[in-house]
Amino acid sequence: METTHKVDVLAMAQRARQAARQLAMADGLTKNRALLAMAEQLVENAPHLQRENGLDLQAARTNGLSAAMIDRLHLTDSRIAGMAEGLRQVAALPDPVGEITDLKIRPNGMRVGRMRVPLGVIGVIYESRPNVTADAAALCVKSGNAVILRGGSEAYHSNRAIAESLLHGLRTAGLPVDAVQYIETTDRSAVGDLLRCDGLVDVIIPRGGKDLIARIVAESRIPVIKHLDGICHTYVDRDADLEMALALTLNGKMQRTGVCNATETLLVHQAVAATFLPAVCRQLAAAGCELRGCPLTRVLVHDLVPVLEARPEDWDTEYLDAILSIRVVMSLDEAMDHIETHSSRHTDVIVTRHYSRAMRFLREVDSASVMINASSRFSDGFEFGLGAEMGISTDKLHVRGPVGLEGLTTQKYIVMGDGQLRQ
Amino acid sequence: METTHKVDVLAMAQRARQAARQLAMADGLTKNRALLAMAEQLVENAPHLQRENGLDLQAARTNGLSAAMIDRLHLTDSRIAGMAEGLRQVAALPDPVGEITDLKIRPNGMRVGRMRVPLGVIGVIYESRPNVTADAAALCVKSGNAVILRGGSEAYHSNRAIAESLLHGLRTAGLPVDAVQYIETTDRSAVGDLLRCDGLVDVIIPRGGKDLIARIVAESRIPVIKHLDGICHTYVDRDADLEMALALTLNGKMQRTGVCNATETLLVHQAVAATFLPAVCRQLAAAGCELRGCPLTRVLVHDLVPVLEARPEDWDTEYLDAILSIRVVMSLDEAMDHIETHSSRHTDVIVTRHYSRAMRFLREVDSASVMINASSRFSDGFEFGLGAEMGISTDKLHVRGPVGLEGLTTQKYIVMGDGQLRQ
Repeated sequence: METTHKVDVLAMAQRARQAARQLAMADGLTKNRALLAMAEQLVENAPHLQRENGLDLQAARTNGLSAAMIDRLHLTDSRIAGMAEGLRQVAALPDPVGEITDLKIRPNGMRVGRMRVPLGVIGVIYESRPNVTADAAALCVKSGNAVILRGGSEAYHSNRAIAESLLHGLRTAGLPVDAVQYIETTDRSAVGDLLRCDGLVDVIIPRGGKDLIARIVAESRIPVIKHLDGICHTYVDRDADLEMALALTLNGKMQRTGVCNATETLLVHQAVAATFLPAVCRQLAAAGCELRGCPLTRVLVHDLVPVLEARPEDWDTEYLDAILSIRVVMSLDEAMDHIETHSSRHTDVIVTRHYSRAMRFLREVDSASVMINASSRFSDGFEFGLGAEMGISTDKLHVRGPVGLEGLTTQKYIVMGDGQLRQ
Repeated sequence: METTHKVDVLAMAQRARQAARQLAMADGLTKNRALLAMAEQLVENAPHLQRENGLDLQAARTNGLSAAMIDRLHLTDSRIAGMAEGLRQVAALPDPVGEITDLKIRPNGMRVGRMRVPLGVIGVIYESRPNVTADAAALCVKSGNAVILRGGSEAYHSNRAIAESLLHGLRTAGLPVDAVQYIETTDRSAVGDLLRCDGLVDVIIPRGGKDLIARIVAESRIPVIKHLDGICHTYVDRDADLEMALALTLNGKMQRTGVCNATETLLVHQAVAATFLPAVCRQLAAAGCELRGCPLTRVLVHDLVPVLEARPEDWDTEYLDAILSIRVVMSLDEAMDHIETHSSRHTDVIVTRHYSRAMRFLREVDSASVMINASSRFSDGFEFGLGAEMGISTDKLHVRGPVGLEGLTTQKYIVMGDGQLRQ
């Protein structure tokens, strides 16, 4: 029970603010030295991590957590190696801080441009997987931000042990230890305290289920970069290459089902529905996917494989499972209207060989990631080439889609003058 | 009293959402046609505008508004011409919508880039000057956003008349009239209603005094792009060109005093204080500026001109008037510590000939605009070359500093594939 003690989160935030100013000035070499030392320490410290992890696993079993949750919690040798490798990969990325862009000369000779700078202090609130402790800290340190971490109570001992290794890395590089702080309590009021640290914490990034995010958005006085649902669509146009469409649908839906960028709804143009739907449904069913179709879909696939009747709420459901809703549409416009109404604006895909319709879809669909002839499963910071990912934003302001190092920074204006006066 | 009737702001927001989808797809020519027709109509409609403005002016006198406020309210011929010219200038700017950047090819042949798109629906809440009605609408329409405008009650009739001219412009170009909606009531609860339209309105931009902004930030469920104080510093380094420093101080403080980018605090390195302060204080005093200094400043300027004793609250005050606080510092670090503690992070200036100190200031000062050897008064969208300005953000997320057309947009990821599947 000692873990539920009160923690002075405000004092942590004040120390983080101080550390942030130092970290913002740290050069890339120093930050990388810290990240590499963190990685080394995690590996060296593996026996200790696993002992602490054992306490969490034991509690999880006692508390009757699901086998899936217990598995996510488990710090195996390969997961510890994976965390260390993640830290090394972040170290290898270019430093985003200090980059100057758009430097233009004004008619009066003054140069005006923008410099990329850290946001300051980032609060990360997450659940379950202890590796987030290392991943999130690495991205924040590399982008010059101090971070306050708050993990789920079920991973309390594991997170604390990981955080110790991270502090060792900061010390080795001579960076302030307050740059990475872990809220060491399972007292739930600590989250509320963190969300009230406006003026000290610049942004909150929650990583977890819908309930966690809803609570944070409702309570926070600090801007939140959030990820809501992933209700992703794949639209098969009348001019689609149907073999490609079949492969993209199967990959988008079944390559991995419990993730936000899996396709949840298949839209099919009526001109190709009679050909395409029987083929795709047969393969999806063979792969173990449950199908829920509109009336026309059910007529077309009749007798081949079972297709349940899609109910209105199906179009607004993120299954996170081997289930696909299917609707036949009369036109590209009807497909885009469906997406406008039901998409969570995460990722939507068109499959077509038709130039103008591809371009219209790209332009008109208002989602964080819009794709032509690619699997929705590519919507991911690593796949997009960001090198790392803090999460995927379904917000519009500041950063949209995968959040990499750049999303953890901002730009200030810089002016280089020679005594210019305003007239 | 009829102006205080209830308005269904939620229904307005729903119509705005629909209009936003159409406006986002409008090409640049159509949007420009609307802006030019708005400009023309404002000029043609000038007699009507001035009749309506007369009602506001009469009420302002009856209600005992200050002469300055009445002047700001007054729609003179030249101010109407100025509004029209502003619309034409926005029409002449490049269209930010649809721009594709960072299009890179991934190892699997998939191209990943970003496309600039409108935010959606913008709520603008402002006070007093009726020209904001036209300026804000122009920037929102050009950037493809629908806008809901809510002006101050003291300009009610003027704003409504301007909004009529704007609608005429939208109709002329065949754009949806719901793209620009003015909340036609002085009922104060309408602002609260607007701030609760989350999910329909994407961002709120308040333009007005501190009280207005504080109320909006406290109440809004929608992200706010805001401008707080402008406590701007000019730091005169030990290696400053003192003639330049004198000109920049006078320009920064006195070129216009009631504005957010005026210098409010002068910091002077001790090595040059004895030479610089008597000269600059004499000129400032001659220009009508009240001076409030630290003890050392008062000693150095002793007998020359009156310098009041600066009290602790002076360092945190935005005077918006011909008043300057002055402090002697021992080093660049002390200057930057002062700025870190007291700056509103709007605009801060160093005057120096020293390369490394100039570069350190540029890098280390965490303000929206950081300048070397230029007047703080340049911190402005027009002066920075943005072509227009919605305001200046002192926030860090999304947009920092002057907010032009780009600040009213966001970027989505686009993927152009050829059937790529995730492994």
